Amino acid sequence: MYGFHYYTPTKVVFGKDTETQAPALIREFGGKKALIHYGGGSVVRSGLLKRVTDSLDEAGIPYVTLGGAVPNPRLGLVYEGIALCKRENVDFLLAVGGGSAIDSAKAIGYGAVDEGDVWDFYDYKRKPKGCLPLGVILTISATGSEMSDSSVITKEEGLVKRGCNSDYCRPKFAILNPELTMTLPDYQTACGCTDIMMHTMERYFTNGGNMEITDSIAEGLLRTVMKNADLLAKDPQNYDARAEVMWAGSLSHNGLTGCGSDGGDWMVHKLEHELSGLYDVAHGAGLAAIWGSWARYVYKDCLPRFRRFAVNVIGLNPVGTDEEIALRGIEATEAFFRRIHMPTSLRELGVSATEEDLIAMAHKCAVGVNGAKGSAKLLKEADMLAIFKASL
Amino acid sequence: MYGFHYYTPTKVVFGKDTETQAPALIREFGGKKALIHYGGGSVVRSGLLKRVTDSLDEAGIPYVTLGGAVPNPRLGLVYEGIALCKRENVDFLLAVGGGSAIDSAKAIGYGAVDEGDVWDFYDYKRKPKGCLPLGVILTISATGSEMSDSSVITKEEGLVKRGCNSDYCRPKFAILNPELTMTLPDYQTACGCTDIMMHTMERYFTNGGNMEITDSIAEGLLRTVMKNADLLAKDPQNYDARAEVMWAGSLSHNGLTGCGSDGGDWMVHKLEHELSGLYDVAHGAGLAAIWGSWARYVYKDCLPRFRRFAVNVIGLNPVGTDEEIALRGIEATEAFFRRIHMPTSLRELGVSATEEDLIAMAHKCAVGVNGAKGSAKLLKEADMLAIFKASL
Repeated sequence: MYGFHYYTPTKVVFGKDTETQAPALIREFGGKKALIHYGGGSVVRSGLLKRVTDSLDEAGIPYVTLGGAVPNPRLGLVYEGIALCKRENVDFLLAVGGGSAIDSAKAIGYGAVDEGDVWDFYDYKRKPKGCLPLGVILTISATGSEMSDSSVITKEEGLVKRGCNSDYCRPKFAILNPELTMTLPDYQTACGCTDIMMHTMERYFTNGGNMEITDSIAEGLLRTVMKNADLLAKDPQNYDARAEVMWAGSLSHNGLTGCGSDGGDWMVHKLEHELSGLYDVAHGAGLAAIWGSWARYVYKDCLPRFRRFAVNVIGLNPVGTDEEIALRGIEATEAFFRRIHMPTSLRELGVSATEEDLIAMAHKCAVGVNGAKGSAKLLKEADMLAIFKASL
Repeated sequence: MYGFHYYTPTKVVFGKDTETQAPALIREFGGKKALIHYGGGSVVRSGLLKRVTDSLDEAGIPYVTLGGAVPNPRLGLVYEGIALCKRENVDFLLAVGGGSAIDSAKAIGYGAVDEGDVWDFYDYKRKPKGCLPLGVILTISATGSEMSDSSVITKEEGLVKRGCNSDYCRPKFAILNPELTMTLPDYQTACGCTDIMMHTMERYFTNGGNMEITDSIAEGLLRTVMKNADLLAKDPQNYDARAEVMWAGSLSHNGLTGCGSDGGDWMVHKLEHELSGLYDVAHGAGLAAIWGSWARYVYKDCLPRFRRFAVNVIGLNPVGTDEEIALRGIEATEAFFRRIHMPTSLRELGVSATEEDLIAMAHKCAVGVNGAKGSAKLLKEADMLAIFKASL
C-alpha cells in the first residue's frame, strides 16, 4: 500500500434538467465572461447549445462561442481558442460536450493564462502553473475528463497525441444529466463504456500497493458498467442505466479507483494513443481492440490481479489453476466487448496496418514513455510491437 | 434514483509522515495566521502537537493554540475559540485530533466570520454564510468530519446536541496518517469502526432512490471496515488495517455512499444524539447499543434492503424467506459488534435509564426532527420511545 493524494474539487450536479443551473454555477465560481466550447453538430442539432446560450443571455452573463472540437482534439483549435480568450478577456470556460470538448477546453485554459506555447505542457517541456476556471455540461459518458486532472491533445504535425495532467485543470463544476446521453449512437455509447472500464482497469492491474477498499470500489464500478452497458445495448433509452454509466464514468477517472496503488499500468492507453493518433479511430474502440492482446501478453506477470478480476468482476467460479481462471476472465471480457459490438482486434477496428506502421507506432509509443512503462508488466519497445502484432 | 449534488473539495494527503506537510498546505490555502485546535492530552503526550507547532515555527507561520475539545464537543469552548480568532486575527484553523476537535473547529470557523450567536446555526434559526478555512491532521478514524459538511455541538444548558451541515465547513485539506491512530485504546478504535459503518448504513437503509454503483461502493466499504475492525481487535498495530479503516472513514461520510438515494434514514444517529447528549457516552458505542433495536423495529418496512445487506455485506446464503434472511443479517451484525467489544444494549453501554429518562429522550428527539424522521420507516415520538425501551 502506497500513500496517495486524492483531490476531487469538482462540484457535481447530477440529474434531469440540471443544465439549467449552468449560469448560477458560473457565477458561483466567479465567471464574468465565458467561452462556450463545443464539438460538432450534435449539441447544435439537439438544441442543447441554444438552451445554454439562452440561459446565459437571460442571466446576463456575456459569452463567446467556439465549436469544432473533434475526437482526438487538435492543437490548431486550441491555439484558436487561446487567442479568442485573450482577445475577448474571457475568464471562464464552459465545455458543452464529451471528452473532446472538455480536453480541448482544458488546453485552452492552460494557454490562456500562459505566454509561451501551450504544446510545451503536452510535450513535457514545462509544467502548467495555472488554468482558466472551467465548467462542464457533459453529453457523453466516457473519458471522465469532467472530474479528472487529465487532458489529451493531438498535434497535427506528425499526428502526435500526448496527455498533460495537473490539478489546475480539474473542472470547477460538472453538470451530469443522463438524459443528454440518450441520443448517442449505440457505437459511441459502447465506446464510452469501454473507456470508463479501462480507466479503472488500468489502475487495477498492477503489481503493487493495492488497498482492499479501493479494490472493492473498483470491482463494484466495473460490474456496474458491464451490466448497464449490456442493458443499453438493448435499451438505449433506459434512464437508470444511463445514470449508472454516467456516474461510473466520473468516478472511474477522478482518482478514487487508484487510491493506495502504485499509480497503475496505463500501457493500454499509451498503445491506443498511438493508434488513434495515426488512424483517428474512436478511443474506446481502440482500447477494446488492443486490450485482449495486452492482457494475454502480461497476465502471467500479474496473475493474482487477473485471477481476482475473473472472480470478483466477471463472477467466474474459481475452479482450475490460477492461470486458467485468469485466462477465462480475459476471454469473458473479450466476449463482453463483442456483445456490445466493440472490436477485439485491429481488423475488427477497421485498421489495416502494415508491419512498418506497427514498428513506427511501437517506436513512437516507446519514445512517448521514455523507453518503458507498465506495472502489470514493464513493457519496452519490442513488447509494444509484439502486442500490436498480436492485435492484428 | 434521485438527482444529487456531490462536492468533496478536501485535498486528502494520505500516508506515513504526512503531517510534516501541514505548513505547506496551510500556505497553499492562503493561511497567514492559524489557530491550532485540539482535544485532550493524547496529542500532547504523543508529541504530535509539538511536532506540528515546531513545523509551523520553522515555516514562519504564526499561530495560537486552543486545547480542551471533548467528545460531544461543548458550545462554551466554541465561544472561547471564536473570541480568540477575532482577537488574534486568525485566518486559518488547523484541527489536530478526531471528530471532536474538527467539529469544534468548524463551529469556531462559522462563528469567527459571523456577528451573531453561532448556536443559531445549530438550532436551525439561521444558516451559515461562510466559515474560516480549515485543515485537519486526523488522529482518530471515526466521524468522517475531515471530509464532511457536518459538525455536531452540544450546548451545556439542557445538554442539547445538534448538528449543522453546510459546504462552507468542508476542510480544505485532510492529512491522514494511519500511524497516528495506532496508540488509540481498543475501545475507541472499535467505536470509530462502528461510527464509520453507521454513516454508510444510515444512507443504505432507505426506501427510495438507490443506485447500483452507490450500493456496490457502500457494500464494499462495509465489508472492508468489518474485516479490518476484526483484524484490529486482535492486532492494533496492523498498519494496513489502520489505513483501510482510515480511508473508509473519510469516504463513508463525504457523500459518496449516498449518491442517488433519498438522503438516507439517519434515525440511529438522531436517537444516539439524545443518548450521548444526556449520558456523555462514546458516540460509536451508543450507535452500536441502539442499532439492533432500531433494525428489528424497522426491517419489515425496508425488507429488500435488509435482505440485500445480509447477502452482500454479511455474506449470508440467501436461503429462507426474505424476513428470515434479513433477521439473520441483523443478528450477524450484532454478533460482529460483540466481537469487537461494542455494546448491543443500553445496559451493556453502562446506561441505566429510568422510564422517565427514555420518555424525555424520545420527546427531545422528536422535537429535534420536527416530529418525525426516517426512510427505512418513518418514526414518530412513540416509535422512538419503543426503540429506546427495546434497547434497554
